[in-house]
Amino acid sequence: MPEIIYGRNPVVEALRAKQPILQLYVLKGVKDQRLSEIEVRAARLKVPVSRVEKAKLLELASVEKTQGVVALLARGQETTLADLFAKARQKNEAPLIALLDGIEDPHNLGAILRSADAAGVHGVVLPRRRSASVGATVAKTSAGASAHVLRVSVSNMSSTIEQLKKTGNIWFVGADQTAEKKYTEIDLTGPTGLVIGGEGKGLHRLVRDKCDFLARIPMVGKVNSLNASVAAALLFFEARRQRAEKHE
Amino acid sequence: MPEIIYGRNPVVEALRAKQPILQLYVLKGVKDQRLSEIEVRAARLKVPVSRVEKAKLLELASVEKTQGVVALLARGQETTLADLFAKARQKNEAPLIALLDGIEDPHNLGAILRSADAAGVHGVVLPRRRSASVGATVAKTSAGASAHVLRVSVSNMSSTIEQLKKTGNIWFVGADQTAEKKYTEIDLTGPTGLVIGGEGKGLHRLVRDKCDFLARIPMVGKVNSLNASVAAALLFFEARRQRAEKHE
Repeated sequence: MPEIIYGRNPVVEALRAKQPILQLYVLKGVKDQRLSEIEVRAARLKVPVSRVEKAKLLELASVEKTQGVVALLARGQETTLADLFAKARQKNEAPLIALLDGIEDPHNLGAILRSADAAGVHGVVLPRRRSASVGATVAKTSAGASAHVLRVSVSNMSSTIEQLKKTGNIWFVGADQTAEKKYTEIDLTGPTGLVIGGEGKGLHRLVRDKCDFLARIPMVGKVNSLNASVAAALLFFEARRQRAEKHE
Repeated sequence: MPEIIYGRNPVVEALRAKQPILQLYVLKGVKDQRLSEIEVRAARLKVPVSRVEKAKLLELASVEKTQGVVALLARGQETTLADLFAKARQKNEAPLIALLDGIEDPHNLGAILRSADAAGVHGVVLPRRRSASVGATVAKTSAGASAHVLRVSVSNMSSTIEQLKKTGNIWFVGADQTAEKKYTEIDLTGPTGLVIGGEGKGLHRLVRDKCDFLARIPMVGKVNSLNASVAAALLFFEARRQRAEKHE
């Protein structure tokens, strides 16, 4: 599914890096050197360019300002596991990654990417199957965050966890309502993989078995379940809270 | 807007209390004493009854089990401010209420009610204007929690805060991204009103001015904003975390 990027610098960078741009949208009726430069580069790479109204750009990007240019990328921020760790290193932080074990509702996936961006999660790991694809709905629900959060698609979540345990020295914490420990009682300040299950189904057994800890979000109500995107946000921001406290 | 309740006891109670039931739905083709009793009561009160398929009941109630009966209430859990405090007293807890200052998206309102239920918020205060109404979309997004969370509609949010300060000795904490303090740095263990603004607009000035504290959710990403329902959930569960810690 295509990914959306916007803004002059990001688009120029994507063109320079010869990223697979499916379509470029440029604001109609504007004379501007940077935009012309973008069009020239696009033409050279045989990227189709459409001149469109401002409303169309805002709709595509789901943000307030696009600087007159939006690009549809074939894969967007899809990257490799190593890049997630590189990002954490760059920021001089212990890795914090989210593994989404079967989030099938694109609204939930978008909301999770938005929270991941805000909470400073270094990247998310998605299964190739049983997951919403990152298309227009996700981009919109994520308020544009889907263009920024690093993503890795893997074919087997439990073997990815196994692999990361060996190479990254990461502790995996799975969200599980049957767990004894509360999510606020588990140390999330070290290198951490937060594993979140699909809506209403929780973690798959194979994935659950690979987790080092299981964490429960304590609930007292009559309905007694949380939206998957809310549960994810609680874990992301709890990790952040603990990390901020540790550095005080 | 109508409210949904389901289950034999809740429906019988609503009929007994002569709550304003707009329509009753009963499972088709079932002989059952309790259900017959419900139908007799409904007939006496001139409440219209429809016999429907199971799928229809589940769709109406947005839950897995309805015990064969769903009722559409004219106002549902709409109540008074005093009831919110009574509920806190019953549970022997410091009051924790949420004031939603203009949540206009019914999906967000439903998600907030669901989180409020799960986090044990004693009730929510909504403005009569500039707020999504609690109808079918809210009921569905709330996963049924809209039938359980106590709600009070007020005509003026800032004068309600003023009034509660006098009578309830409550501290009001407003979510505001320009605040100095983080939401995790403010004591939420005492009687607390969490004030949450509308999507993308934040708190109204008059409401903001009435708050005793303003709290910021620290964000690091490129998008730098959270979904209103995520922000609300973070505040609800932070209050809960602090309260649990205090009692350890």
